[in-house]
Amino acid sequence: MDTLILSSADTREIVRRVGLNAIMDRMIDALRSTLASLVPDRTVVPLRSGFHYHEPMPGLIEWMPIMENGSRATIKVVGYHPENPDRYGIPTILGTVSSYDVRTGHLIGIADGTFLTALRTGAASGVATQLMASENASVVGIIGCGAQAVAQLHAVSRVVDVTDVLYYDIDDSTVQSFPERCSILQLDNVRFSASEPGDLVQFSDVICSATSVDIGKGPVFADCDTKPWLHINAAGSDFEGKYEIPRPLLERSVVVPDVLEQAVSQGECQQLDGHQIGPELIEVVCREDLQRGLGKKRTVFDSTGWALEDHVALNLFMKYALEFDLGSYIEIESVSHDAKNPYEFVFNGVLQVDSPDALSG
Amino acid sequence: MDTLILSSADTREIVRRVGLNAIMDRMIDALRSTLASLVPDRTVVPLRSGFHYHEPMPGLIEWMPIMENGSRATIKVVGYHPENPDRYGIPTILGTVSSYDVRTGHLIGIADGTFLTALRTGAASGVATQLMASENASVVGIIGCGAQAVAQLHAVSRVVDVTDVLYYDIDDSTVQSFPERCSILQLDNVRFSASEPGDLVQFSDVICSATSVDIGKGPVFADCDTKPWLHINAAGSDFEGKYEIPRPLLERSVVVPDVLEQAVSQGECQQLDGHQIGPELIEVVCREDLQRGLGKKRTVFDSTGWALEDHVALNLFMKYALEFDLGSYIEIESVSHDAKNPYEFVFNGVLQVDSPDALSG
Repeated sequence: MDTLILSSADTREIVRRVGLNAIMDRMIDALRSTLASLVPDRTVVPLRSGFHYHEPMPGLIEWMPIMENGSRATIKVVGYHPENPDRYGIPTILGTVSSYDVRTGHLIGIADGTFLTALRTGAASGVATQLMASENASVVGIIGCGAQAVAQLHAVSRVVDVTDVLYYDIDDSTVQSFPERCSILQLDNVRFSASEPGDLVQFSDVICSATSVDIGKGPVFADCDTKPWLHINAAGSDFEGKYEIPRPLLERSVVVPDVLEQAVSQGECQQLDGHQIGPELIEVVCREDLQRGLGKKRTVFDSTGWALEDHVALNLFMKYALEFDLGSYIEIESVSHDAKNPYEFVFNGVLQVDSPDALSG
Repeated sequence: MDTLILSSADTREIVRRVGLNAIMDRMIDALRSTLASLVPDRTVVPLRSGFHYHEPMPGLIEWMPIMENGSRATIKVVGYHPENPDRYGIPTILGTVSSYDVRTGHLIGIADGTFLTALRTGAASGVATQLMASENASVVGIIGCGAQAVAQLHAVSRVVDVTDVLYYDIDDSTVQSFPERCSILQLDNVRFSASEPGDLVQFSDVICSATSVDIGKGPVFADCDTKPWLHINAAGSDFEGKYEIPRPLLERSVVVPDVLEQAVSQGECQQLDGHQIGPELIEVVCREDLQRGLGKKRTVFDSTGWALEDHVALNLFMKYALEFDLGSYIEIESVSHDAKNPYEFVFNGVLQVDSPDALSG
């Protein structure tokens, strides 16, 4: 029973063959259609859990499990280590995503979770933006211009006709490198303008916030007048005590969490009372009456990250791996011919012949 | 940043090179010395969690995480599907174990968790038997002769001079095949005798129970007179409502759980009040005063399975993989040269040259 190992080279090849824009489009479509058809009773999503620590570096390693009853389970294990870029030149977010057969427990496949996390977090904002942004939106504000910002802008650019990108980061070099990093998106007719947060918030139709603001140091911009149809994707990594958006602005907005229970403990919804929180994203996807008029209102998508997004992304990449015949198949689990003898696989009947000494070692 | 993939062939090769007896000895030694030197504050072991279900087959998929602060985290994902052997000819327990660098979140390696689970569950009983069995023990009783029983007997045979094995299973064919399955252990001067549970319990010095008894159907043998120094390793898989040992016998014994919190919810300790439960295994390992006299008393090791055991086993196999130059190194996590651009890895600077169309797909 082999396990499909999708190397980063395989992931790269899939993205190159499908195309970066097409894969974001597929991911947005797949996520939205999965949300629209999801049977809650058949999909089990325990709250994520993990190790949080401050030594030797601040960081966390989390596992995010999800099971589609009778079919597959997906577990993403993802690290968030903000010192990775400066210290090791590697991404803050490193992860892998694994797929299990619910009938047998077999590990079907394992793939990159780093690009997939960016892609699926972007795609979630893409779905939210489709549903909640003004149909005439054209100015996109980016607050926090790190790794996730590229995918956020990418996703929004697939569902909004972007003319202008206003961008801000507390770190000057991150500001300076942002347009160059976005060149990969080939947004050729889009004007990029570094902006102060006040201007950015005032002039944007859609904002994506994706910061690593410290716990207790939010919000990341001051409340001010906004366009009455401003849609915000609040996508920064989430901790207790961490939030990005000013509370009064949340209170003037329809706030849509991805997962309510998680959002009230780790997301923007920490700042709100229950009655101030709107429907979950899945409800908005499923109910046209809830969608109506959202494009004319202030809206906030409180994105805390959802294992369902990883599940959809992994299944998409595994489907492409099969289609393109990519990946390596390796048997990892030891399977004895005799299911009642875990040692049998070691010798598989050849014990007497060629390894008489192996037991005496 | 490559990930070490240890295939089942690599695991096999390690066991063949080291030798089956030697690897059990190393595993028992490593587990005992890890327990003896463990700094509780620096080792974080969340209770395991998982998906439990009855459709399409009864089973569970669990994740068992552990972190050594500042060093490595291990997560075993293990399936328990009792219909696997009959339906698919594969083991009830299928699993993989993964190691993560706590500094960065990087997946260091992944290996088989099926053989490792048998080995480490055996080794835990080995440590318990070293500490609690009579020094003159020679008769070992095996209740439940499935896959785990082979490793249980193996471990006990490494720490006790076994002369007789009495064995029982509710399934006749499992009884009949047990001595043949144990031939791999080369216990050449040991007498194997199929026994009724009553005789088995009465005449054994050490008993290992490793059954798949249904929830609410325990115990797996009736209470009776036992040798006053009987030591039991209660190693069967653990659920709420599942137990193997008669309560009165537990009440006459010193009951040592591997992890108290888990044992009281899933192990034999479910049947006891708090004051009837003895010290945890780690306390017995660390404190000679607690060890004294145990060999003359009735003792029960309530083994519910501990992520620490997986952590020690995986580290042992990864050490051997390095020593023997085994395993495949595959980069799974996508790492962009630019840590702030998750898309950069896709094109790595060659976008303009050879894939101008990739973005338009």
